[in-house]
Amino acid sequence: MEVSVEQSKTIQMRLVLPSDTNHLGTIFGGTVLAYIDEIAAISAMRHARKAVVTVSIDKVDFISSAKVGDILKLEAFVYSTGRTSMKVFVKVETEDLFTGEHHLTTTCFLTMVAIDENKRPTPVPKVIIREQEEQIVQLYQQNKRNHKA
Amino acid sequence: MEVSVEQSKTIQMRLVLPSDTNHLGTIFGGTVLAYIDEIAAISAMRHARKAVVTVSIDKVDFISSAKVGDILKLEAFVYSTGRTSMKVFVKVETEDLFTGEHHLTTTCFLTMVAIDENKRPTPVPKVIIREQEEQIVQLYQQNKRNHKA
Amino acid sequence: MEVSVEQSKTIQMRLVLPSDTNHLGTIFGGTVLAYIDEIAAISAMRHARKAVVTVSIDKVDFISSAKVGDILKLEAFVYSTGRTSMKVFVKVETEDLFTGEHHLTTTCFLTMVAIDENKRPTPVPKVIIREQEEQIVQLYQQNKRNHKA
Amino acid sequence: MEVSVEQSKTIQMRLVLPSDTNHLGTIFGGTVLAYIDEIAAISAMRHARKAVVTVSIDKVDFISSAKVGDILKLEAFVYSTGRTSMKVFVKVETEDLFTGEHHLTTTCFLTMVAIDENKRPTPVPKVIIREQEEQIVQLYQQNKRNHKA
Amino acid sequence: MEVSVEQSKTIQMRLVLPSDTNHLGTIFGGTVLAYIDEIAAISAMRHARKAVVTVSIDKVDFISSAKVGDILKLEAFVYSTGRTSMKVFVKVETEDLFTGEHHLTTTCFLTMVAIDENKRPTPVPKVIIREQEEQIVQLYQQNKRNHKA
Amino acid sequence: MEVSVEQSKTIQMRLVLPSDTNHLGTIFGGTVLAYIDEIAAISAMRHARKAVVTVSIDKVDFISSAKVGDILKLEAFVYSTGRTSMKVFVKVETEDLFTGEHHLTTTCFLTMVAIDENKRPTPVPKVIIREQEEQIVQLYQQNKRNHKA
Ligand SMILES: CC(C)(COP(=O)(O)OP(=O)(O)OC[C@H]1O[C@@H](n2cnc3c(N)ncnc32)[C@H](O)[C@@H]1OP(=O)(O)O)[C@@H](O)C(=O)NCCC(=O)NCCS
Ligand SMILES: CC(C)(COP(=O)(O)OP(=O)(O)OC[C@H]1O[C@@H](n2cnc3c(N)ncnc32)[C@H](O)[C@@H]1OP(=O)(O)O)[C@@H](O)C(=O)NCCC(=O)NCCS
Ligand SMILES: CC(C)(COP(=O)(O)OP(=O)(O)OC[C@H]1O[C@@H](n2cnc3c(N)ncnc32)[C@H](O)[C@@H]1OP(=O)(O)O)[C@@H](O)C(=O)NCCC(=O)NCCS
Ligand SMILES: CC(C)(COP(=O)(O)OP(=O)(O)OC[C@H]1O[C@@H](n2cnc3c(N)ncnc32)[C@H](O)[C@@H]1OP(=O)(O)O)[C@@H](O)C(=O)NCCC(=O)NCCS
Repeated sequence: MEVSVEQSKTIQMRLVLPSDTNHLGTIFGGTVLAYIDEIAAISAMRHARKAVVTVSIDKVDFISSAKVGDILKLEAFVYSTGRTSMKVFVKVETEDLFTGEHHLTTTCFLTMVAIDENKRPTPVPKVIIREQEEQIVQLYQQNKRNHKA
Repeated sequence: MEVSVEQSKTIQMRLVLPSDTNHLGTIFGGTVLAYIDEIAAISAMRHARKAVVTVSIDKVDFISSAKVGDILKLEAFVYSTGRTSMKVFVKVETEDLFTGEHHLTTTCFLTMVAIDENKRPTPVPKVIIREQEEQIVQLYQQNKRNHKA
Repeated sequence: MEVSVEQSKTIQMRLVLPSDTNHLGTIFGGTVLAYIDEIAAISAMRHARKAVVTVSIDKVDFISSAKVGDILKLEAFVYSTGRTSMKVFVKVETEDLFTGEHHLTTTCFLTMVAIDENKRPTPVPKVIIREQEEQIVQLYQQNKRNHKA
Repeated sequence: MEVSVEQSKTIQMRLVLPSDTNHLGTIFGGTVLAYIDEIAAISAMRHARKAVVTVSIDKVDFISSAKVGDILKLEAFVYSTGRTSMKVFVKVETEDLFTGEHHLTTTCFLTMVAIDENKRPTPVPKVIIREQEEQIVQLYQQNKRNHKA
Repeated sequence: MEVSVEQSKTIQMRLVLPSDTNHLGTIFGGTVLAYIDEIAAISAMRHARKAVVTVSIDKVDFISSAKVGDILKLEAFVYSTGRTSMKVFVKVETEDLFTGEHHLTTTCFLTMVAIDENKRPTPVPKVIIREQEEQIVQLYQQNKRNHKA
Repeated sequence: MEVSVEQSKTIQMRLVLPSDTNHLGTIFGGTVLAYIDEIAAISAMRHARKAVVTVSIDKVDFISSAKVGDILKLEAFVYSTGRTSMKVFVKVETEDLFTGEHHLTTTCFLTMVAIDENKRPTPVPKVIIREQEEQIVQLYQQNKRNHKA
């Protein structure tokens, strides 16, 4: 079976609340990581139509911060599949409440595995990725590699 | 100033967690209401580029339920504006994890008011609504009226 | 079977916490709605001695706000019953910490349905309402209608 | 200044949620303690019309348990006052959803102190306790002493 | 069977978050109590290798406070055992973020009971306490008694 | 100024609760990531005696899972310092409640930066690492590299 990248496209907009931030009013990295994992899991579940677990998260760099009152925009899709595993791309942006300006907070590559009722890996359909999404993923992967070198 | 309906379009997909549900495993109405208010506030804030408060929520009917493991899909946009108030339309659907089927959970009309630092009402830009969104709102408003009659 | 209105009378006093509020320190409408639904569910469950789900919430107008440190006072009772459904009246007031003054925040009418283990509607006892509660409900229903006209 | 015991009388009914319980479905002692402290704080704040902090909690014995779906009923009032401190009595009962039966979960005596903006102790009005409440407090204090002997 | 005090030794360091505090920025007593109960439960579970419930908590005096940004340090161990019950000692200190200074917030003695799948008391292994821990417990028990006298 | 690795050593033991898990009862990766970020922040704050933000998290592989009732054990320390940045090592193990067996869940390397009141990077003391901790870090870094090759 094959599934279009459209099926796993998932979007979240969240308000940064006082309880998400430290006493300086900036968001905890852990809160953003929890949001990233949640959207990646939803995206992978919508692709596989099965329960999933996170097995791996690539290096995450927090390029810019978010503060109370900002809006976090998260987008995710499955861009590559193995037998039981799916690679998910997540992009996190901040939208400034007052100016509407967007800032890239981070991008992230995760591997999720579909599991059955016995919590054992179970096959997932292949993803058919469009050129548009392929280019997005390549662009950010390239950036990460340059960043490391 | 005038602002396109595009600017306030907001989407959320959320996983129904065990902590969102009662001991029969169905989601609390209050959880759905809190999600509705959150997305309406984000939508109105993105339209007005100001802080907002909820002043009114129209009748909400919960047509179908959601259970642990389902995905809730919420969509919102500002469809009409006064001087300081905005009317927001919110649609909530459930996506069954295993079949991908969508069920309408509820639709909702809210009034949000933009407020300044002194918590007093403050003007908002007019919304320019497209025919597409206008029809969606009319369709659901019509349904509600028929339902009541 | 018939049950007195006393049995479903339910009271809550809650402290407005920083995590319930936005960056201007006023409570989220969604938080109040979640509290309203919770107390209505408790009230209906105590009437029916069964699990319940929310099927409908009438128009809610937030007349005044609440801020961090205020005390929210919620009261609920079942004022009318169908075969499997119950109508619950909820009143929300704010008590100012320093002056003790009360402000009406909102009133709300909800319909809850009793459900059995298979999540199907199941009969509830009739409510015997006292004149006192009957007048309260009529007063607020009247107000709402005038407000709309 | 003197204040009647009526002013600090505070009631809470709460639904025991899955997230309040361990994997055997019984409520955590810590959840009950947090609820006790919250209602005692609200009660003392309503007496003093000032912010308060908890300075001491007397021995707490959990006589019976509560499970998911039960209703917790908490009642509190200030029964004695010093210059800046207040003694609060809290009683916690469980109401079985299906039978309506009440079980005493625990009783508790706390000391709260009123504080000003600099977090320094600040005077509170005297409480005028009625015979009815006086007897309740004495009854439970007596029980505790016998229990210990 | 006998188990060394080492097995139940449990440590927690937690950041005091805005959502743990009142509007004056000091931590709620109830939050600290919930943390105390959680660490005591973990400690007793690690001793007994069974699920546990809290049956009793001795008088708790809050000697010093904690504020947003402080670090709470909690330590617990089982210091005495009955047939099905365990006595747990918990010590709570505050570490000032900027100076690193420690302040004793409170000490606490709890009784936990091991329970089986039917929620009935079930035997626990004896604890072998070392002189070091014995002295700690005696020191604080002595202090409490003096405090009361 | 120089600070011993002892100062930043931080330990957490946490109970896996129903609300931390999906409908199969296994913990969310996002929950573990949020715990990792919290302990890393506490560790870095204790080293620097300043507020910190997370700037980077290295690849995280979840080797084994945790389920409701398990105990998560997290350990963290600062093992290397720049001018304003600190590298923190975090190790997460699961302790099975019934057998006491430990399983490695994951290890993680994070970079935290100390910030002042204006949220600008601010210098941190050098860390003096002991041979013991140096070997732990090298061992796990080696493992990660082999794993990747
Ligand atoms: C997911 C899990 C069941 C896989 O078990 P396993 O014995 O490694 O199973 P397999 O070897 O069959 O691997 C299954 C798939 O996962 C992939 N995988 C395993 N570990 C991986 C890693 N660290 N990074 C990327 N992919 C990984 C494998 O390549 C394989 O993919 P494929 O089927 O597409 O070829 C197991 O690692 C696990 O339970 N991990 C914990 C997951 C979890 O609970 N996360 C939440 C927080 S702890
Ligand atoms: C919002 C609030 C500041 C409005 O104050 P007000 O004195 O009524 O101000 P105004 O009369 O100028 O009304 C402001 C706008 O709100 C609209 N409005 C007020 N009450 C409304 C209601 N119940 N339904 C729909 N619109 C309403 C007015 O029509 C006006 O719209 P316009 O400027 O587009 O013409 C005040 O009602 C309030 O604080 N409410 C509580 C809001 C809140 O905190 N909600 C969260 C939970 S309690
Ligand atoms: C509640 C539910 C099971 C009712 O199913 P149904 O097929 O409509 O059942 P019935 O037609 O037998 O109706 C049952 C009762 O509900 C009442 N009811 C149904 N929809 C209603 C609505 N929108 N407003 C008011 N009452 C309503 C009926 O009048 C009937 O009352 P009565 O027995 O007193 O005469 C179903 O609508 C449902 O599951 N809704 C979702 C509830 C929920 O999960 N809410 C939480 C958030 S999504
Ligand atoms: C724990 C519980 C099952 C004990 O039931 P019980 O019928 O008293 O059982 P037992 O008489 O066999 O007592 C069991 C052990 O608890 C001890 N115990 C009971 N009540 C106690 C109290 N108030 N203080 C100290 N120890 C107590 C007994 O001494 C006995 O210890 P031992 O076996 O080491 O000699 C029952 O009291 C209960 O369910 N309490 C509620 C616990 C709970 O849910 N707490 C969370 C918040 S409500």
